[in-house]
Amino acid sequence: MSVTHPAGFTAAAVAAGLKSSGAKDLALVVNQGPRFDSATVFTANRCKANPVLWSQEVVKDGVVKAVVLNSGGANCYTGAEGFRTTHAVAEQVASGLGIGAIDVVVCSTGLIGLVNPRQNLLDGVDAAVAALGAHGEDAARAIMTTDTVPKQVVVEGAGWSVAGMAKGAGMLAPALATMLVVITTDAIVPAAELDAALRAVTRVSFDRLDSDGCMSTNDTVTVMASGASGITPTPADFTVALTQACTQLAMQLLKDAEGAEHEIAITVLGAASEDDAVEVARSVARSNLFKAAVFGKDPNWGRVLASVGTTAAAFDPGDLDVAINGVWVCRESTPAEDPSGVDLAGREVSVTIDLKSGTERATVWTNDLTHAYVHENSAYSS
Amino acid sequence: MSVTHPAGFTAAAVAAGLKSSGAKDLALVVNQGPRFDSATVFTANRCKANPVLWSQEVVKDGVVKAVVLNSGGANCYTGAEGFRTTHAVAEQVASGLGIGAIDVVVCSTGLIGLVNPRQNLLDGVDAAVAALGAHGEDAARAIMTTDTVPKQVVVEGAGWSVAGMAKGAGMLAPALATMLVVITTDAIVPAAELDAALRAVTRVSFDRLDSDGCMSTNDTVTVMASGASGITPTPADFTVALTQACTQLAMQLLKDAEGAEHEIAITVLGAASEDDAVEVARSVARSNLFKAAVFGKDPNWGRVLASVGTTAAAFDPGDLDVAINGVWVCRESTPAEDPSGVDLAGREVSVTIDLKSGTERATVWTNDLTHAYVHENSAYSS
Repeated sequence: MSVTHPAGFTAAAVAAGLKSSGAKDLALVVNQGPRFDSATVFTANRCKANPVLWSQEVVKDGVVKAVVLNSGGANCYTGAEGFRTTHAVAEQVASGLGIGAIDVVVCSTGLIGLVNPRQNLLDGVDAAVAALGAHGEDAARAIMTTDTVPKQVVVEGAGWSVAGMAKGAGMLAPALATMLVVITTDAIVPAAELDAALRAVTRVSFDRLDSDGCMSTNDTVTVMASGASGITPTPADFTVALTQACTQLAMQLLKDAEGAEHEIAITVLGAASEDDAVEVARSVARSNLFKAAVFGKDPNWGRVLASVGTTAAAFDPGDLDVAINGVWVCRESTPAEDPSGVDLAGREVSVTIDLKSGTERATVWTNDLTHAYVHENSAYSS
Repeated sequence: MSVTHPAGFTAAAVAAGLKSSGAKDLALVVNQGPRFDSATVFTANRCKANPVLWSQEVVKDGVVKAVVLNSGGANCYTGAEGFRTTHAVAEQVASGLGIGAIDVVVCSTGLIGLVNPRQNLLDGVDAAVAALGAHGEDAARAIMTTDTVPKQVVVEGAGWSVAGMAKGAGMLAPALATMLVVITTDAIVPAAELDAALRAVTRVSFDRLDSDGCMSTNDTVTVMASGASGITPTPADFTVALTQACTQLAMQLLKDAEGAEHEIAITVLGAASEDDAVEVARSVARSNLFKAAVFGKDPNWGRVLASVGTTAAAFDPGDLDVAINGVWVCRESTPAEDPSGVDLAGREVSVTIDLKSGTERATVWTNDLTHAYVHENSAYSS
């Protein structure tokens, strides 16, 4: 059930002393080969953390042999000194494994603006290298911050598999959401094919997650293919497995979002383009008023349409349909079925908006806005 | 201190039975002339309420003789029947005053999707017409929804004055924020000049208010000039007075925003363009994470920069300065002065972001994200 399930991967997790709790806070995932194909996508935020600046260079040649991740500090906005820390960590991993630092992706998560203690990280790397084994589960736990559960997935292919781990609970929005994901597979997948599959998949999975509208500085999704199964799946088969793995991880992130009491799937139908559908769905996903209403179990479709109206998508403002949990509470932009028939007691909420302007559709996932979200994010760094 | 302060205006407020509390919920403001110049701006939301659809036609010729406003229901997404209600209300006002319905602006506020009881409104109009007098203060109270205090202003000119009333506490965002504003003046100001002044002023006052990122369907700002003072101020003098009136009303809206505990002024300096400055300031104003941090009295500048990074404005991600309440907690995108020196105990918070990419600047005002905001907006319609 972990990133060490596919053949060719080892992992370890140690307590490097970054988390004040003394919990494990440094994870290492190593591809033992024989192949080292990889693909990575990063946050679209223009303010990128030092590990992202480093890793962007690492992934350019499609070869990644190890990913080292720490929680307890994002190493973002820490300047040249912070970059040197990231570089030193990569060198320490490389030296311990006998590989080049330029094949080591570094990921960090935690508070922005905190300088991570370099020696703790370097000592932690040494301990992790010494402890490498089938410890994917430990690794998934070590990267948790405000996450309440580790997120992991395994998808089985025919003689090969795809596995993944993820962390992320806040600052969870599109264009990769403070979300770190490591995917492993023992299939033989050339780097270019991995890259194409990963970009196609993240576009409709992690990038469609918009829990709180806040885009992170550290988001990284790395997939490594060891080829250790000796099997070369068809591109379609591999893409399907990768899609299942990423979608399941995205749903695990959604379910563990900070303070959330509902998972809300906003589906826009009848759009003139997929971009229109995404724009409309995202506008609703970012309406604090609608999200607070869902928390209050109030099927407030007026707040849905008020958000739709802020977009540039093609639609007739006088001819919009809205359903909440299957009840069409609004037809042709006027009240229709009785909203009191909408049951919002469960965690899962579906909102469907028909723009009646085309045939495209898209779903964006978000959460409700709760007292617990406000509490967690007002008390986080204090 | 009310819209009936300038010469030539009367007002009245009555309980029409729209508010279940039995409080006054219908207001009428009448320009008695001798002139009837006017200008109006509406929400930029494409999903507009019926009163907005009606009033857009009314204001086209620059003549407005009366504004009738109701709380207790927004008359939005209520279809053709809702439009007929708006029209009937305008006709009733016209008939009572002996003017044309096409000179009557109608404003409604309250829940979206509720059909307002037409007969209550028509009876209320009759009662209001009969009660017209120097009752601006009552009118300001009658348009309140979740507002806790009426918002009014008077700015004195040389022998003339500008006065205003406003309501708005939630769904408070740019492009006019569920904000209804009536401005009166007894200066002589031709309609074209009124329009130019109003658009210039709202662009940098109400449009720079972004309390919760949610744009309303009903926002309307109408200014009526009676000319009853007999004085024609210079365009500059009038624009200054209108600016002061609108800015003071905007600040009153900000201070009474639903559940807020802080008023936050986000100023962006060193921008390549004013649009860049506004885009960056607004992105921070819409960061739930930053707003929750302010609620928690946490000067979390990392969340500021994470928002800046989501914009397309011109800046170097490695060279940004951020001050919170005058303490430069971030210089050149790295930690600078000690954040523990930032005192967030008071209600007023200033955030300054220097993009170092030009000479333009802009300020956007927002509020913090609090438990009370979540509570009020999860319980509002239930």
